[in-house]
Amino acid sequence: MSILINKILYNAGLPGNICYHDEGARLEPVCCRRGHFLHGPYPDTHFGPKACVLPNPTSVMHIQDPASQRLTWSKPPLNVLVIRKIRDETLLEPFKELCRFLVEKHLMVYVEKKVVDDGSLMTDDSFSAIRNQLCTFREGYDDISDCIDLIICLGGDGTLLYASSLFQGSVPPVMAFHLGSLGFLAPFKFESFKTEVDKVFEGNAAIILRSRLKVKVVKGMFQRNEQLFSTQENGIAPHNHINNEAGKITLQLQVLNEVVVDRGPSSYLSDVDLYLDGRLITSVQGDGVIVSTPTGSTAYAGAAGASMIHPNVPAIMVTPICPHSLSFRPIVVPAGVELMITLSPDARNTAWVSFDGRKRQEIQHGDSIKITTSCFPVPSICCHDLVYDWFDSLAQCLHWNIRKKQTRLTDASDSSETDN
Amino acid sequence: MSILINKILYNAGLPGNICYHDEGARLEPVCCRRGHFLHGPYPDTHFGPKACVLPNPTSVMHIQDPASQRLTWSKPPLNVLVIRKIRDETLLEPFKELCRFLVEKHLMVYVEKKVVDDGSLMTDDSFSAIRNQLCTFREGYDDISDCIDLIICLGGDGTLLYASSLFQGSVPPVMAFHLGSLGFLAPFKFESFKTEVDKVFEGNAAIILRSRLKVKVVKGMFQRNEQLFSTQENGIAPHNHINNEAGKITLQLQVLNEVVVDRGPSSYLSDVDLYLDGRLITSVQGDGVIVSTPTGSTAYAGAAGASMIHPNVPAIMVTPICPHSLSFRPIVVPAGVELMITLSPDARNTAWVSFDGRKRQEIQHGDSIKITTSCFPVPSICCHDLVYDWFDSLAQCLHWNIRKKQTRLTDASDSSETDN
Amino acid sequence: MSILINKILYNAGLPGNICYHDEGARLEPVCCRRGHFLHGPYPDTHFGPKACVLPNPTSVMHIQDPASQRLTWSKPPLNVLVIRKIRDETLLEPFKELCRFLVEKHLMVYVEKKVVDDGSLMTDDSFSAIRNQLCTFREGYDDISDCIDLIICLGGDGTLLYASSLFQGSVPPVMAFHLGSLGFLAPFKFESFKTEVDKVFEGNAAIILRSRLKVKVVKGMFQRNEQLFSTQENGIAPHNHINNEAGKITLQLQVLNEVVVDRGPSSYLSDVDLYLDGRLITSVQGDGVIVSTPTGSTAYAGAAGASMIHPNVPAIMVTPICPHSLSFRPIVVPAGVELMITLSPDARNTAWVSFDGRKRQEIQHGDSIKITTSCFPVPSICCHDLVYDWFDSLAQCLHWNIRKKQTRLTDASDSSETDN
Amino acid sequence: MSILINKILYNAGLPGNICYHDEGARLEPVCCRRGHFLHGPYPDTHFGPKACVLPNPTSVMHIQDPASQRLTWSKPPLNVLVIRKIRDETLLEPFKELCRFLVEKHLMVYVEKKVVDDGSLMTDDSFSAIRNQLCTFREGYDDISDCIDLIICLGGDGTLLYASSLFQGSVPPVMAFHLGSLGFLAPFKFESFKTEVDKVFEGNAAIILRSRLKVKVVKGMFQRNEQLFSTQENGIAPHNHINNEAGKITLQLQVLNEVVVDRGPSSYLSDVDLYLDGRLITSVQGDGVIVSTPTGSTAYAGAAGASMIHPNVPAIMVTPICPHSLSFRPIVVPAGVELMITLSPDARNTAWVSFDGRKRQEIQHGDSIKITTSCFPVPSICCHDLVYDWFDSLAQCLHWNIRKKQTRLTDASDSSETDN
Repeated sequence: MSILINKILYNAGLPGNICYHDEGARLEPVCCRRGHFLHGPYPDTHFGPKACVLPNPTSVMHIQDPASQRLTWSKPPLNVLVIRKIRDETLLEPFKELCRFLVEKHLMVYVEKKVVDDGSLMTDDSFSAIRNQLCTFREGYDDISDCIDLIICLGGDGTLLYASSLFQGSVPPVMAFHLGSLGFLAPFKFESFKTEVDKVFEGNAAIILRSRLKVKVVKGMFQRNEQLFSTQENGIAPHNHINNEAGKITLQLQVLNEVVVDRGPSSYLSDVDLYLDGRLITSVQGDGVIVSTPTGSTAYAGAAGASMIHPNVPAIMVTPICPHSLSFRPIVVPAGVELMITLSPDARNTAWVSFDGRKRQEIQHGDSIKITTSCFPVPSICCHDLVYDWFDSLAQCLHWNIRKKQTRLTDASDSSETDN
Repeated sequence: MSILINKILYNAGLPGNICYHDEGARLEPVCCRRGHFLHGPYPDTHFGPKACVLPNPTSVMHIQDPASQRLTWSKPPLNVLVIRKIRDETLLEPFKELCRFLVEKHLMVYVEKKVVDDGSLMTDDSFSAIRNQLCTFREGYDDISDCIDLIICLGGDGTLLYASSLFQGSVPPVMAFHLGSLGFLAPFKFESFKTEVDKVFEGNAAIILRSRLKVKVVKGMFQRNEQLFSTQENGIAPHNHINNEAGKITLQLQVLNEVVVDRGPSSYLSDVDLYLDGRLITSVQGDGVIVSTPTGSTAYAGAAGASMIHPNVPAIMVTPICPHSLSFRPIVVPAGVELMITLSPDARNTAWVSFDGRKRQEIQHGDSIKITTSCFPVPSICCHDLVYDWFDSLAQCLHWNIRKKQTRLTDASDSSETDN
Repeated sequence: MSILINKILYNAGLPGNICYHDEGARLEPVCCRRGHFLHGPYPDTHFGPKACVLPNPTSVMHIQDPASQRLTWSKPPLNVLVIRKIRDETLLEPFKELCRFLVEKHLMVYVEKKVVDDGSLMTDDSFSAIRNQLCTFREGYDDISDCIDLIICLGGDGTLLYASSLFQGSVPPVMAFHLGSLGFLAPFKFESFKTEVDKVFEGNAAIILRSRLKVKVVKGMFQRNEQLFSTQENGIAPHNHINNEAGKITLQLQVLNEVVVDRGPSSYLSDVDLYLDGRLITSVQGDGVIVSTPTGSTAYAGAAGASMIHPNVPAIMVTPICPHSLSFRPIVVPAGVELMITLSPDARNTAWVSFDGRKRQEIQHGDSIKITTSCFPVPSICCHDLVYDWFDSLAQCLHWNIRKKQTRLTDASDSSETDN
Repeated sequence: MSILINKILYNAGLPGNICYHDEGARLEPVCCRRGHFLHGPYPDTHFGPKACVLPNPTSVMHIQDPASQRLTWSKPPLNVLVIRKIRDETLLEPFKELCRFLVEKHLMVYVEKKVVDDGSLMTDDSFSAIRNQLCTFREGYDDISDCIDLIICLGGDGTLLYASSLFQGSVPPVMAFHLGSLGFLAPFKFESFKTEVDKVFEGNAAIILRSRLKVKVVKGMFQRNEQLFSTQENGIAPHNHINNEAGKITLQLQVLNEVVVDRGPSSYLSDVDLYLDGRLITSVQGDGVIVSTPTGSTAYAGAAGASMIHPNVPAIMVTPICPHSLSFRPIVVPAGVELMITLSPDARNTAWVSFDGRKRQEIQHGDSIKITTSCFPVPSICCHDLVYDWFDSLAQCLHWNIRKKQTRLTDASDSSETDN
């Protein structure tokens, strides 16, 4: 991680003409002065009296500090998608309250058709006026990805994963309420929802950009495509399928948590090869392997033993599931690498891939799964801020480091061995 | 992670006037075209039709892609520090060979006095001519931190940690040979050392900037300072001690692997509080806690169960040592946060802190340890490149994911249950 | 663990009238003298001057020390079952060699029909004479469980699991050669097979009794039995199905490694309740749960993170698979408890159970799986002895604690901080 | 694990002349009839038609089923040792209440002198009458190990470990109240202490025999003994020091939780060799190694990552502390083995050993630590029973498998992919 050291390059363009470095000066004053980017300080790129990083302007990134990111509206938001966890009746009243609130603010409220067609909703006369003003859509048939300004989720992490799946390109800001469910990704409480929603509409909310992974499944040239077409019937939007250069058909998806390659219903170990930037890194024998975002590190990867990574760390995590090897520790690699997973030549069986727990499909010899960080994150609105929210979720949802404390001793004068 | 989306800001200053974004255009083409920064792609910062990240030019970082970083020399290097693991006789001949080679290239070779005073070296007449040309220094007394152009290490990871400790500010490039030791951080083989050294002198070597942690120990106002002064006698250079605003004396150090706070010789659990950016995050009851760099994730933190993080991920890792709680999973936080560790108010005993395994000292009620990413990384010269070297070390040094493979079945026609 | 303290009870019956305890004497001399049972010493059951364990002769077990167990033959063995891993051509020649050797010793050699019908075996004229003398059987149709005197396995752990599955009651002694496969349970090398087999025939071989689990699946009263009958077609012998008191149909099986209850092809967490001796102990949310023997602790349970248990420890291990909870550590309970697993009332989906990786079937609300230690262990012939073989397998098959060692320092006179 | 199969041996001596086996009959009926020993069923020791375990009467153990063990008194208990956690003022009142209750029952109450000399106790006039009737002793000077009938502990696990350390031979029954502390080993609540103590005096309480480890430290012949004598001054009772056959001085101790060998204050890895029954099993490089009882598996070994073992499993657990190797999984071996730990010949530094967290001392080249299961367990009185108490402690003290549950879905009619 290195900043460009040529001061001339930047002075001109920077607002207020802040001078980052004096000619020949060492970086220390700069990093002391500015220091506190969430990604860490600019590293000094002079090493001793004579060495430095060769400046390479074409490879410089300009990154806005994640801790300073605020959501703003170029025009007032109008179209709000409300996602509700289905099959949980405790969410019915909150859902109705929210819809009424939004409709009465003259917003266009989008709801999935099957949510609106819910029996108890249809028979509720007091809600029918509101109900008639809801815009409905069907997943896989109606594309709403270009017209939604804000997403509001009721009901836990599953709703966010679902929201993510609906928006394969740019994702509108997501405001998630944890209601009757695990809410690791859903920081808001519903009690004060009106105030909270109003604040978001006013703009300037803290947001966290949760990186997603762009996953491409490339079917081997000699594979029949039957399976792929049949999954299409289940509602994968056509733009997910791209004819690539070799005439193969591919599926492309964005995942918020993880891609899982596992043995599926087979009783055999899965046996897959893992490539990083085109190089074979290792083979995974076991139940499977999880490639996850930092957001996913507290989901399935966490269950499989991974360390937990704050979502602002630009990284991809690779976690084996019940690996046959005692020494297969999870690894964390930079966000910009491209991973590829294929069946090992020696694999006895096929493997199965799924995306945020969905769209499970079989992978055969000749197929490959390519994974890299997407440029379309999920902008998740923070309840407090991106650090507080995360640690609060660790404690509330995962009971991280909960334990019974030893009592304090009355006087600390003595800590001899005979103490008991 | 978000780039500044206002094109006007940057177009001017960028070399060759590459146009990153067209007015109003979506980011997709850009990230598809450029895509492959090690830190990941620029995230799109427009979210749906109306939301975006509020541009904030003062919080933009300019980061050169780590994968593209090459070492270059502004002037030919002259002063070379050779660090040799002591008390390992197998290193004697390589050490002599290397010194001879460097001296004969008319370089100034710096060696620690106790290395040169080694008995078998002093009695070797054939080496005396070379020996007389070596510049010697004593750790803690002679400051060579401003005059070294290149460091060459013989003997494993300990030599790198030692090199890091000698340079509390900017660190000259380090070329490390693994010789008779664990060489996770030492990618070079000694066999072809002349060729390898020559290549480094020519410039353009791939380097990896291994981030360090800047650690400050702030003694409580009412603590007596005796202990601190006595450690000074052990050779901590005076500039490490800074009088801070409240008149307290602090110790400041850079670590390459980790800061460890543990119970020391006590039989009690240590009990320390962990703060992140001023907020109490959790308390650690157990043998202690490790705050490590990604480089340190494969050292002590790895032994304590952490996932292994590639050194180019900008992160800090917090790993408990034998925590009293079953649910204290290691966490990975962004490199830019400031961590602070203090004794818990309830702690029955003091704790001990050490820095890369050195300078162990006691921590008492009222003291605090502040840790954040340093702007002075260790520029480590790669043998192949920053990805290959890391996975090679995982395999060679840690036997990562080594296992006996199941044999391939002869024909895959059948995988019935009765197979065995 | 307590011995019966009433001396009168035993003196009479013990061979040679060895007097274990004098009236009123303390146990110490006894346990010092005899001490070295593998299960540990007799515990003293007098506690201080006045307390003791209430003697209860009806609850005394008489256990022969596992370390002293030797295999012996009441009559010369005649019928030998040879199990060969199929679909591995490297085993063809060893298989033929072994059959020839056994047939020429005038033994009856039993081989599964599909192994004999292997193409390359049928076309090998030089083997046809031997082939014609082999007795064949079909799994699930021909019951050979009462006529086999010795089992010889070629090809790794799978062959032992398969052997175990063929013998639901008493299991003949098993001699297992690891050939072209993972051989954790297969200690013998094939090179000297003639000598080794002859030694076994002579008797007095060291054996280890690998405990198995007796597993009963009790279908809920209102479940339809279709599924069960269809699995019958796959070859489950009829005697596995027992009508129990409530008219439910049950399946009963012996497993050598483990029973696994998992989510099967579902994307949801499995959610099962775990009972111990009729009491609800905990609920398992995650990929599933493994109930294993000590033998199984180095198989799937090991991959899921369990400690590794020597097969002579009388215990049952419960290991979660990717549990949703951070604090669900594996547990080890005494071999004599009865565990029961059911779907949790809140479970959203069914679960799936499998037995040593076989006979996978669905578990629904109302079903229960009862598990306890079987009285029919697998008597596995040791290559060296029961301790050596186990540690040898840990090292050879699992690379347990393999690491690169630090080199020894030349002289140990000094271990100052500045050492590197 | 095998019972003696010769019926003649036992029929005579068994109460009521129960016939365990008919001549030639198979064991099945027996294990079905009796089945439920906590250690598991008698294994059938006939294997197929012709093989069996060679009967060896001299190696038969007679074990009373742990689940049936009840405490009984040969004479009414008179002398009660009360152990109180010091330096915790919240225990003062309970301590006084308990002493008053016991004294008024005309029991002799033993209390450690320093507990009675506690300042607030001495100045409490209302307690002085009781106080004058207490018998006091000093640890290391007064031996009370032969005169105590019952031990009552107030204050958590530390008090039990302390009680264990006072009784190096037979241990009187222990009744432990968890008061203001972690009470994994202390099942009783103090609220109803009078009823509970009365019940114990009446006899027939359920007890669990917690196995201890007998640890011997054998100093190398050429080691100076200075250190050992200095520890003697700290109160190790003289009978712990035994001159062994080679003239070396040894220390022998019983531990309830664990023996720990670690690097002590050194910054180097410890490097020790582990022998099992005289054979070198592995070397441990890392912070150290824990050899623990099942009771200790939930203490330090649990913090170091071990599976948790019910105290009635006859086993010894070996757990590395932060091992240098990724593949050093904890192991569980039969209770009857003898482990030995020495410094590795290559060790750069000495190591330190401690016993239940006490009596820390240095181990040098030539020293060895021998560990096996003791025949003097700690008879711990159960609050409910040995299974319930354990799982209750896991949940209450370790928060084992605590997690936020997913909510139940309202109707389970549908579990389609689009559910969220």
